[in-house]
Amino acid sequence: MGFFTIKDLKSRILAQGVEMKTLSGERVMMAFFRLEPGAVVPEHSHPHEQMGLVLEGEFELVISGEKRVVRKGDVYHVPPEVRHSGTASRSPAQVLDVFVPPREDYK
Amino acid sequence: MGFFTIKDLKSRILAQGVEMKTLSGERVMMAFFRLEPGAVVPEHSHPHEQMGLVLEGEFELVISGEKRVVRKGDVYHVPPEVRHSGTASRSPAQVLDVFVPPREDYK
Repeated sequence: MGFFTIKDLKSRILAQGVEMKTLSGERVMMAFFRLEPGAVVPEHSHPHEQMGLVLEGEFELVISGEKRVVRKGDVYHVPPEVRHSGTASRSPAQVLDVFVPPREDYK
Repeated sequence: MGFFTIKDLKSRILAQGVEMKTLSGERVMMAFFRLEPGAVVPEHSHPHEQMGLVLEGEFELVISGEKRVVRKGDVYHVPPEVRHSGTASRSPAQVLDVFVPPREDYK
């Protein structure tokens, strides 16, 4: 239980140009990503259900082969085991991904 | 699975000055709230775990008796059955609440 602020959460560099900060509950995790221009999140899947919200900027997102440019205010849903990938735009983007259950590898 | 945008989600008025739009997955729900000045979410609790992110503006949030003014970029965690309430500020606020499991009463 409690109050937090994104800027004070511990930062971790997941890949070149991909910074992540997470907050975990019992059954849910919020993961805040900052994507720098040129950053790539290669295609992958996981058993966790995922929902995302673009907080700032835009990036290219592919879910199960369907490609879209997603922008601030856009939301997406990635069911368990569905393959997805992301590619940064020419400007930075900020994204919230919610994982259920929390991803142990992101804690 | 899929792509959505907040502004296209169906809107529902929960109480005076409290507008809500939701997106449900299997195990998680995103609920986007807009709080107008004067809006009050009375103290309540539920068996769902909740995490929230302030998207715009600010409001007063009380979790288990602890009162804070939360602002854009602030995050909070409400474990199952913990009592909480909210009171709008003098300007509108936008908030994302994540519920696990999805709240049937908000679908």
